[in-house]
Amino acid sequence: MRAVDLIRKKRDAGEHSPEEINFLISGYTRGEIPDYQMSAWLMATWIRGLSRPEIAALTEAMLHSGEVVSFPEIAGRKVDKHSTGGVGDKTSLILAPIVAAGGLSVPMISGRGLGHTGGTLDKLESIPGFNTSPTLAGFRRVLGQCGMALIGQTAEIAPADKKIYALRDVTSTVENIGLICASIMSKKLAEGIDALVLDVKTGSGAFMQKEGDSVRLAELMVETAERMGKKAVALITDMDQPLGRFAGHSHEVIESVEVLKGRGAADLRDLSVELSAWMFYLGERTGTVDEGRGLALKLVASGEALDKFRQGIALQGGDARVVEDYSRLPQAKRRAEVGSLAGGFLAATNCMEFGVALAMLGGGREKKEDQIDPGVGLEFHKRIGDRVTAGETLVTIHYNSESRLNEARHRIAESFQFSDRQPPAKRLIRRLVGA
Amino acid sequence: MRAVDLIRKKRDAGEHSPEEINFLISGYTRGEIPDYQMSAWLMATWIRGLSRPEIAALTEAMLHSGEVVSFPEIAGRKVDKHSTGGVGDKTSLILAPIVAAGGLSVPMISGRGLGHTGGTLDKLESIPGFNTSPTLAGFRRVLGQCGMALIGQTAEIAPADKKIYALRDVTSTVENIGLICASIMSKKLAEGIDALVLDVKTGSGAFMQKEGDSVRLAELMVETAERMGKKAVALITDMDQPLGRFAGHSHEVIESVEVLKGRGAADLRDLSVELSAWMFYLGERTGTVDEGRGLALKLVASGEALDKFRQGIALQGGDARVVEDYSRLPQAKRRAEVGSLAGGFLAATNCMEFGVALAMLGGGREKKEDQIDPGVGLEFHKRIGDRVTAGETLVTIHYNSESRLNEARHRIAESFQFSDRQPPAKRLIRRLVGA
Repeated sequence: MRAVDLIRKKRDAGEHSPEEINFLISGYTRGEIPDYQMSAWLMATWIRGLSRPEIAALTEAMLHSGEVVSFPEIAGRKVDKHSTGGVGDKTSLILAPIVAAGGLSVPMISGRGLGHTGGTLDKLESIPGFNTSPTLAGFRRVLGQCGMALIGQTAEIAPADKKIYALRDVTSTVENIGLICASIMSKKLAEGIDALVLDVKTGSGAFMQKEGDSVRLAELMVETAERMGKKAVALITDMDQPLGRFAGHSHEVIESVEVLKGRGAADLRDLSVELSAWMFYLGERTGTVDEGRGLALKLVASGEALDKFRQGIALQGGDARVVEDYSRLPQAKRRAEVGSLAGGFLAATNCMEFGVALAMLGGGREKKEDQIDPGVGLEFHKRIGDRVTAGETLVTIHYNSESRLNEARHRIAESFQFSDRQPPAKRLIRRLVGA
Repeated sequence: MRAVDLIRKKRDAGEHSPEEINFLISGYTRGEIPDYQMSAWLMATWIRGLSRPEIAALTEAMLHSGEVVSFPEIAGRKVDKHSTGGVGDKTSLILAPIVAAGGLSVPMISGRGLGHTGGTLDKLESIPGFNTSPTLAGFRRVLGQCGMALIGQTAEIAPADKKIYALRDVTSTVENIGLICASIMSKKLAEGIDALVLDVKTGSGAFMQKEGDSVRLAELMVETAERMGKKAVALITDMDQPLGRFAGHSHEVIESVEVLKGRGAADLRDLSVELSAWMFYLGERTGTVDEGRGLALKLVASGEALDKFRQGIALQGGDARVVEDYSRLPQAKRRAEVGSLAGGFLAATNCMEFGVALAMLGGGREKKEDQIDPGVGLEFHKRIGDRVTAGETLVTIHYNSESRLNEARHRIAESFQFSDRQPPAKRLIRRLVGA
């Protein structure tokens, strides 16, 4: 078998056998197939597409490119959630402690932010001392002790995905549902979980802006998980505006703690409860999703979820006092207001632009090598459907450096659209796939 | 401008500006754009295609990636011929001396063989001592002294093409007419010529097997040459069977000398005269193509063309005595006959397979690094339309090593097709483009 012939086959819209996919992925992981051949194959694949059997084979090849973790020593069920990412999406920080407090185990391998999206790891690292890269043994110990552990992708887990993702990023071959599915699922299936809840974002702040694409990706991922013997469900959720009121690392930790204290923004609280409920149900902790909702709300109200978060932070080396004293988190020094350019009902946002503006101010990464300023953030005062007068503050920018403030401010101001009539309310959860 | 955005644009079937093409080609030539980005762009380009303005911009960017030669010190017109390649195609060795003997200059930069095709440089190197890589100054001196000089691509001329071609070869992005046109024309336009005759092969032994594709490539190349102020014409010629009676390096040199002596196979002689005639006409040596034919025939009959070949060989360091004494050329030690598997009229050949079999026996390159055995060759005894009895010899194999002889013999035997009725004769010159 030769890589050049497999590239030609995909170029000509052929379908690969599992052996061919395996040859490509294992050869590339071992460094026998060079980057330039893999990138030509990725482009042919992006354009020609992958069949369902090809996606299944790709996912398995990437999964088995490294270690597949299991936790036989942990008696209970292991569940996880994965989100396709957006602006202000911080539910992992909320549902991991809720679900762990409810008695399930949450071994969560998370990513870093790039472009307009934030990453769970970066958010956790705004907590002084928090170590997101323990050894696999350390991860196992924390998970056993408190039922939740949050780490970054290690070199041992799905190394093919790590290498391929880096190449896709620089060759414009990211947005293809087959490649996305294999990338996500190869990592999640390597985590040793029994069930997975997927939060597939749709709208102006999501990678998949059209709901139809999000549904197709969700179906593929659920099908892939089930084929591998895992229970799975996907919620298609709104990303036409930021989730919650804050975007930016320290700010999102604070907002998550607020939800765990029974406060915080309604949309963020509702989605966190909904995702937790599905995790309880798929993890067989509750007999119905509705019972799961009840359990999640009870664990927040009793303070048990917050206690679990404190315990998790401490076990990963972080300063758990941030939960009571937000000033222990990095804070931006200055504030600037973004006033509305028009009056009327807030009708839509170009949500991705908020993430881009945040990165521009240092609160995200424009390039992989960029350092993040965790204190920088955006505070959103209005939601779609709200009445706004011209000049009224829409966003407060928390910033440190003025270098690109004006550019970011313009970008934000121009990302709101208004209408004379009140638009219908956005449904937070658009659809359920695989339930 | 960023390479990743240009890759995305072509991926999404966008059209590049000349500035964008130039950014990609100059960045890649300088090593600022890595192989893996260029290969992703090449695959997107292969699938999405290039517009005529894009092909023009690509050709110019590749042409100007290196030195553009000119010969102000040579008074007469400079003309060249380029063939898209096939099996037994040795016309360069015949027409260069004819045209130089007629008073025009032929500065010919040729290639090496790969896969099923032979290369002019490899054929010349079967002549003991012949140096195909003099300095540019040496090339200029030989051209000035005898009106013909044949060398390989130098590092100075169109370095972008050299680098991109190597990448296309290993990423299955070769067969695209826009990329082929830019590759050929960037080199030919760098040669300092006034006019170019193109021999675009069509049929089972050509890169472009369908006549329509050959015509489209021919039109593109003629248009590109004319846009750059060069006269050009393309002949679409038959490659449904080998050209002449021999394939293999020494054998092709001998067959070329035979034609220059007024003998040789009719098809090879006719095509060489036809191409020479067009070179005389475009080079303004004759007022009509027909006068050009007459001049070519006269220069062969008088022996002037053969003398010119002797002179050219000697000036490039070769042993000119090969012209009289063929035993000075490398010879294969053994012979094997390939008998016909059936009887009837020879109706068609899978011509490419003859080239593949030749390479298999050492008479060509399967991989770029392969050494060529110049004495190995194939002698074809029958042409399409000939009557053949079962078992009659179709091909004589001249070989040295037996290691893959049987494989090659089967391949050759199975590449002939027969019919009960005599097929119509193949026209050698199918069409004229740009005249």
